[in-house]
Amino acid sequence: MDAQSGGYGLIEQGALVVEGDRIVWVGEEEQLPERYADLPRHDLGGRLVTPGLIDCHTHVVFGGDRAREFEMRLEGASYEEIALAGGGILSSVRATREADEAALLASALRRVDTLLAEGVTTLEIKSGYGLDLESELKMLRVARRIGAIRPVTIRTTWLAAHALPPEYKEDRAGYIRDVVIAGMEAGHAEGLIDAVDGFCEGIAFSREEMAQIFEHAARFGLPVKLHAEQLSDLHGAEMAAQHGAMSVDHLEWLGQDGIDAMAASGTVAVLLPGAFYTLRETKYPPVQALRDAGVPIALATDCNPGTSPLTSILLTMNMGATLFRMTPAECLTGVTRHAATALGLADRGQIAPGMRADLAVWDIEHPAELTYRIGFNPLHARFVGGELV
Amino acid sequence: MDAQSGGYGLIEQGALVVEGDRIVWVGEEEQLPERYADLPRHDLGGRLVTPGLIDCHTHVVFGGDRAREFEMRLEGASYEEIALAGGGILSSVRATREADEAALLASALRRVDTLLAEGVTTLEIKSGYGLDLESELKMLRVARRIGAIRPVTIRTTWLAAHALPPEYKEDRAGYIRDVVIAGMEAGHAEGLIDAVDGFCEGIAFSREEMAQIFEHAARFGLPVKLHAEQLSDLHGAEMAAQHGAMSVDHLEWLGQDGIDAMAASGTVAVLLPGAFYTLRETKYPPVQALRDAGVPIALATDCNPGTSPLTSILLTMNMGATLFRMTPAECLTGVTRHAATALGLADRGQIAPGMRADLAVWDIEHPAELTYRIGFNPLHARFVGGELV
Ligand SMILES: [Zn+2]
Ligand SMILES: [Zn+2]
Repeated sequence: MDAQSGGYGLIEQGALVVEGDRIVWVGEEEQLPERYADLPRHDLGGRLVTPGLIDCHTHVVFGGDRAREFEMRLEGASYEEIALAGGGILSSVRATREADEAALLASALRRVDTLLAEGVTTLEIKSGYGLDLESELKMLRVARRIGAIRPVTIRTTWLAAHALPPEYKEDRAGYIRDVVIAGMEAGHAEGLIDAVDGFCEGIAFSREEMAQIFEHAARFGLPVKLHAEQLSDLHGAEMAAQHGAMSVDHLEWLGQDGIDAMAASGTVAVLLPGAFYTLRETKYPPVQALRDAGVPIALATDCNPGTSPLTSILLTMNMGATLFRMTPAECLTGVTRHAATALGLADRGQIAPGMRADLAVWDIEHPAELTYRIGFNPLHARFVGGELV
Repeated sequence: MDAQSGGYGLIEQGALVVEGDRIVWVGEEEQLPERYADLPRHDLGGRLVTPGLIDCHTHVVFGGDRAREFEMRLEGASYEEIALAGGGILSSVRATREADEAALLASALRRVDTLLAEGVTTLEIKSGYGLDLESELKMLRVARRIGAIRPVTIRTTWLAAHALPPEYKEDRAGYIRDVVIAGMEAGHAEGLIDAVDGFCEGIAFSREEMAQIFEHAARFGLPVKLHAEQLSDLHGAEMAAQHGAMSVDHLEWLGQDGIDAMAASGTVAVLLPGAFYTLRETKYPPVQALRDAGVPIALATDCNPGTSPLTSILLTMNMGATLFRMTPAECLTGVTRHAATALGLADRGQIAPGMRADLAVWDIEHPAELTYRIGFNPLHARFVGGELV
């Protein structure tokens, strides 16, 4: 996945050398330097090795599920009827507030383990279903706990600006002050926050509100990212890029101004085909224009209980190809090298000296098979920081 | 899944009694008759039990794969370039002819095992990538072998009328006589064929050709089914229904005449959302009109290397809901009761006395969760003919 190859950079009969948790050498097996000849060897049997996969946008920690709401909608219930029956995002907020850390952890682990079983070695997890200071912090404590008990790197994201809870319906500024910013300060002090995110949309927060939140993030030295241009074009991507955002995510309605701003700031475009599929969107993200502008494109599950109850990074790759017409090489780069950049991690997403030895070993012959198949998991083994897990 | 309930027919605190490979009693646990009190018990821990799932339309036995062709198309290659590079259905035919039974078995088992891991207990497998007499029979021998070495019921289908091979390009009648019908006779004599199928489409076989093939099937007492109305409306469904077809499959272009004929003959409509998704179709099968006419609707993976490299029956259910707006109860009925009918099997697809004890046990609370989640497998255990496997 090296940037120079413009594709897979595939080595047909390869070898790599690991020291501690790092890759120190990679190349053709027959070129293996003499000095490594006596190291213990692990024969992968001619299987394909890729960087460990990176899911750079998830909401895997939440209470309850929304299966009954999904069913009601298909049975013809209106949004009003679903809301009256307690459905919608607020049902996830209620269930998340009510759940204790142990319950949130148990339900999240089932989803996380499904992702790990597909070769994921780095996973981003957002808050955003608590919407009060304590519940938002609770979500990120659970996220940190996942990283402590499972062999995976967890990156946490403060997404208190996900939706406005009913108790602040008449006091948007109060919510931003008391929960989004006060919680950011508390979570930062507790070491719970790796980045700050928000949902910039008519139904959520405005560009101006998000800019204000990003200024506070800068105060704490926290990098930012944004859910933007999913349902309409509020020019959130442009604003985020001006704040040096690591990524802007969704982007179906992204215009050329946003693309140019992202190209200038080196911001990654994270596309989320699971939400596009679930919502049966017809407006496609501007993949060709992003390519033309040289904006790196990543793919992620957006795993969440409402609009993308998706726990397969491989299916996400297939959807990137089938729905968004990305090539299999772009799909794989989108869950490795560019996904790492979207998380501000320069030490992974490629198999190269100095990189973390996070690796996925697959029972396939060509990397395109990862994207081509639907609902098939050819993972043979996963290495995290050089350890077979 | 009983027909009377009009839905799941869910029993909250249930029990069932198995004798040999059959269910002999099912009901509320507290109503369990005294005469069963001393039987050995298997506590399922309050988990959800459904009938074992049935994938009633697959092409899981084939040689090679088409990942590179998938990649070339996304890289912008034309159909001509792909054909020149050896792609298309004929590449699968070539690879299938070249493979011996052991190689076909090994590659098919990976796909079959993925389906079984999702609770499948009955699986239909078609020929159709050999397109010569011996290679078609070879495919069905492999299919029968799968049923011998894995705990699953296999139903085989003779699909020599899948495509016209190049050597018969100028002799359609010769292919039908020498391969489709002569092979049907040979395969029937060898006990290899449970049903006869064909692809009725402008690029494959006409309605008249298929009617001729179906008349030979009737001569051997073999039930029929048809791939029809996928890309255009050739009124194949109507013809198939007049031949008493167990199912007609695909059906995006099905018209009211076909629906009425299927309702009259009790023919099942098998919808294949994996192919619809992969081909990015925009013409939807007439789900509401099928419902209105009382035509039973089944769902299947259509697992095949070209238009649906899909090995997830659960994802098929999600696609039935998300893409075709079927309710979760319809999706589950579509891979149990109606899928059994599509295969002419009256002894499965429901949990009821007299039915085979083919069961799937799930770590979920409500059956809608099976359809709601994407890329998540909550299977806890599978029982086949009363045995935990
Ligand atoms: Zn999101
Ligand atoms: Zn088919």
